[in-house]
Amino acid sequence: MQSMDDLFYAFLQDIYFAEKEQLKVLPNMAQKSANETLKLAFRDHEDETSEQVARLEQVFDILGREARGKTSDAMIAIIAEAQRLIDEADDEAVRDAGLVAAAQAAEHYEISRYATLLGWAEHLGEDEIVELLSETLEEERHADELLSSIAEGGVNATASERPEEAEV
Amino acid sequence: MQSMDDLFYAFLQDIYFAEKEQLKVLPNMAQKSANETLKLAFRDHEDETSEQVARLEQVFDILGREARGKTSDAMIAIIAEAQRLIDEADDEAVRDAGLVAAAQAAEHYEISRYATLLGWAEHLGEDEIVELLSETLEEERHADELLSSIAEGGVNATASERPEEAEV
Repeated sequence: MQSMDDLFYAFLQDIYFAEKEQLKVLPNMAQKSANETLKLAFRDHEDETSEQVARLEQVFDILGREARGKTSDAMIAIIAEAQRLIDEADDEAVRDAGLVAAAQAAEHYEISRYATLLGWAEHLGEDEIVELLSETLEEERHADELLSSIAEGGVNATASERPEEAEV
Repeated sequence: MQSMDDLFYAFLQDIYFAEKEQLKVLPNMAQKSANETLKLAFRDHEDETSEQVARLEQVFDILGREARGKTSDAMIAIIAEAQRLIDEADDEAVRDAGLVAAAQAAEHYEISRYATLLGWAEHLGEDEIVELLSETLEEERHADELLSSIAEGGVNATASERPEEAEV
């Protein structure tokens, strides 16, 4: 690892792997969501993630380098948490609240990676790459805000109802 | 995992573990930074992180539950990446750029966790906890912005100089 080009390529491989892992788990997260708005948000984000993967492949192409992922242990851990919540949360409203939290951890990981790569691409004078990454970064920030508004718009309130309140 | 109280406690244990892990690695990140502003930022964030750990212990105390961490594989992975960058980046400016990126991944993980816990604490009616978590969330957001400004204020430009430019 001797240059910014090496570092850029390593981080690009990390986010490429991360996005493709997220793409695999999103259908399951959608299926296991009880809240309909959350379910829809996960489905929409699956489509969006496919486009983001394609955009990353364009970036590899511009660099003239092979589009190959490199294991992102952080993303693997975040996805494993989502899977654990699906398996272990007996109450569906509590599970929804947990799934939003796991998804937001994934979004924030991606936001940090795209913001980093964007800053580096600017310094490397890669204008076309800057444009591609900006578009995705904007989408990830929007996805995070949407999840916050879904949590606030019902998921957290439903999950926080104590059993005695729920029975009233 | 049957209630929001269970979920809250599980996520609280996750961030408690994560903060304590970060506390262990920050001195090494400071020591290995070549950029003086970055070095100072890591040192300051070490003090800040100690206070954040103490604040989390107050939260456990308010809940009347034991302050005990639960392994956060995501944070372990993020820290392992920082360590790998320290070991593998031969160029010190490139290493600094990588360390900023790893630190920002850690900050974003923490931002997502505190934002989640804060939203849940509001719904659980835990006003004192809301106040403690808000203070930390604000600090984490500020730490992330500071790292961005350090990257933009010199680290990225120095790391992006091609050898032929550096020799001029």
